Amino acid sequence: MKITLCRKAHFNAAHKVYKKNWSQKENSKVFGKCCNENFHGHNFDLIVKIYGEINKNTGMVINLNELKKIIKNEIENELDHKNLNLDIPYFKKIIPTTENIAIYIWEKLNKAINLDCTINVVLYETPRNFVEFSGYNN
Amino acid sequence: MKITLCRKAHFNAAHKVYKKNWSQKENSKVFGKCCNENFHGHNFDLIVKIYGEINKNTGMVINLNELKKIIKNEIENELDHKNLNLDIPYFKKIIPTTENIAIYIWEKLNKAINLDCTINVVLYETPRNFVEFSGYNN
Amino acid sequence: MKITLCRKAHFNAAHKVYKKNWSQKENSKVFGKCCNENFHGHNFDLIVKIYGEINKNTGMVINLNELKKIIKNEIENELDHKNLNLDIPYFKKIIPTTENIAIYIWEKLNKAINLDCTINVVLYETPRNFVEFSGYNN
Amino acid sequence: MKITLCRKAHFNAAHKVYKKNWSQKENSKVFGKCCNENFHGHNFDLIVKIYGEINKNTGMVINLNELKKIIKNEIENELDHKNLNLDIPYFKKIIPTTENIAIYIWEKLNKAINLDCTINVVLYETPRNFVEFSGYNN
Amino acid sequence: MKITLCRKAHFNAAHKVYKKNWSQKENSKVFGKCCNENFHGHNFDLIVKIYGEINKNTGMVINLNELKKIIKNEIENELDHKNLNLDIPYFKKIIPTTENIAIYIWEKLNKAINLDCTINVVLYETPRNFVEFSGYNN
Amino acid sequence: MKITLCRKAHFNAAHKVYKKNWSQKENSKVFGKCCNENFHGHNFDLIVKIYGEINKNTGMVINLNELKKIIKNEIENELDHKNLNLDIPYFKKIIPTTENIAIYIWEKLNKAINLDCTINVVLYETPRNFVEFSGYNN
Repeated sequence: MKITLCRKAHFNAAHKVYKKNWSQKENSKVFGKCCNENFHGHNFDLIVKIYGEINKNTGMVINLNELKKIIKNEIENELDHKNLNLDIPYFKKIIPTTENIAIYIWEKLNKAINLDCTINVVLYETPRNFVEFSGYNN
Repeated sequence: MKITLCRKAHFNAAHKVYKKNWSQKENSKVFGKCCNENFHGHNFDLIVKIYGEINKNTGMVINLNELKKIIKNEIENELDHKNLNLDIPYFKKIIPTTENIAIYIWEKLNKAINLDCTINVVLYETPRNFVEFSGYNN
Repeated sequence: MKITLCRKAHFNAAHKVYKKNWSQKENSKVFGKCCNENFHGHNFDLIVKIYGEINKNTGMVINLNELKKIIKNEIENELDHKNLNLDIPYFKKIIPTTENIAIYIWEKLNKAINLDCTINVVLYETPRNFVEFSGYNN
Repeated sequence: MKITLCRKAHFNAAHKVYKKNWSQKENSKVFGKCCNENFHGHNFDLIVKIYGEINKNTGMVINLNELKKIIKNEIENELDHKNLNLDIPYFKKIIPTTENIAIYIWEKLNKAINLDCTINVVLYETPRNFVEFSGYNN
Repeated sequence: MKITLCRKAHFNAAHKVYKKNWSQKENSKVFGKCCNENFHGHNFDLIVKIYGEINKNTGMVINLNELKKIIKNEIENELDHKNLNLDIPYFKKIIPTTENIAIYIWEKLNKAINLDCTINVVLYETPRNFVEFSGYNN
Repeated sequence: MKITLCRKAHFNAAHKVYKKNWSQKENSKVFGKCCNENFHGHNFDLIVKIYGEINKNTGMVINLNELKKIIKNEIENELDHKNLNLDIPYFKKIIPTTENIAIYIWEKLNKAINLDCTINVVLYETPRNFVEFSGYNN
């Protein structure tokens, strides 16, 4: 029997959304205030959803304490209180839009979670702007 | 690569849920307090979800500032601080249940958003009553 | 020993904020969209705060079940799913701004709650607009 | 035309998550603080989602007042202010993890809701831990 | 210059609200469902407010990391995932109403926080029931 | 008759909390992760409270649309999508702790709001960390 277990986490980070080979004017036209040169920031909220078989022995899809540890080690410790553009090598070449941050998080979790399951991430940049990502075949 | 971008909006409106060719007693039996003759109202919260390909150039499914403008022009400017039954011609014939308001919003957005994507709307009448609509083939 | 017990309630109502002896233009200048002739509406959230002595026998300031009943009888049953301008006599002469609705609620509760205490009401018209009222000497 | 109507409910209950035939040490290793012998508790939030055809006559998937009654009778009256392990026979043999409580709720609603529809439940143990269940074939 | 720094925390606990020397009938009359013999539980949310002078050197009223540690050691470690009636000696004699739990928390924090300040606690038993306590002279 | 009108606003900004004449080690000891050299950021939520006489003519303490404009011009336009340390001259010399940002906002609003009233600001750095400031004589 399959069910989805979900866990909410968060991290506070600075970023700017701009394209290096574009002029400030072009960036401003496409990205608006989000390309401010000196960065701005957000309280990112993250929901990780694990869809898989219930373990009949424990009544859990995945041990919640293990899931918390994985999210802490893979995501919070790396992204919390950081500048995504300057502190995270992945975003040297890739623009840290909410979409791309969500994909980055999904990829890290997909490698770290050793379970036959489907992973879905929901990433809130603000309470009003968020993305959902379920992997490459969905 | 496909991903879902979501944007939350809101509008405050009055409505009543009743059927013109029914007696007040019949309306009351089916719709309860919601058929109060003089209307009541809600702070409607709306989430618009756009599922489509990420634009490799910008890292976005749809430009968030354009999406905000479309929602403002198509939905908020038309419905905010209005009486749905009296001010919106569509609801002269159709009962403005949350279900029907969500379909109305989906139809307007589906015409206005010029993109190869799937649109999903979530409409909260209250924090405890809400509907989800994904279009006619879902 | 004094402490404050708080209870949250809510009601959904229609209203319009306008002055009868003003022109539509004057109303629009002062009240903006809120004076729409056909009404609009809100999910009002109400917090009632009771500051008084703890009853040593029960460990409560006021019996929470009694407080719920009073709020239900005095406020929710009267205002929920109503049109404040048309259905509530008090607002025939008084403009139902959030300020005036809060005072109306405070007055009704102050009469109904038979206890040596200070009553404070917080009334949310939306999650972003709200008023606090503590009575006439505060 | 199909759409999803959603209703939020809640109940406050005590439970402990432990396996009777395991030692306290084994339980503690798997379930952490959740196996505290004397129980702990939660404000459970429940979202019930009903996906089905809109009734053309009423503009509703299911009458919301009927849905509220079913949730009240089947779920809130049985689980609110209870100890899941001691007061609910189903959890004498089955560990009341959030996953198993969600399945229990889904089964009860699936029997009680007499409609051609798909039922989905979302059960929040805390605002940060929750599960989603859509039945046995999803 | 004085300002108030606030920190939110939480703990999940079981309790029952009843008086030992009363009959079950008397308890039920006064405390309603809250006196269920086998306990029920809540996700308690706690806000701790520290009103004091800003330290000119650091720009803070109290070091937030120190405040977090005090709340963790004094409150969360003691009350989280516990049964208030059975696991906390203070509540052997005193009924764990929200009022009394708030006073207990205030007393513990008032001893542990070594600063010239006024402490205020807000304790949510549910999102709709909460108390505020500012100490014995307020 | 006096009452308090409250309005919620928000802005997303980057900052770092550190003292220029301290070593990185000293900064880290006092400010923890918040002194990360490359900045981090937050979705700041701001509540502005205006306590004053109700205008008998309009039923409002202050015209809400005027208050919105003042908050937009004085606070949101200046701080939203900015780096507080680099883009706001005031924070060249003063550490942008939540306390100091709240005082800065209060001072700007106190100059801009031309009304006999008491202003109180509540500033959320995160949903769990916030400050309240009521001016210099409170």
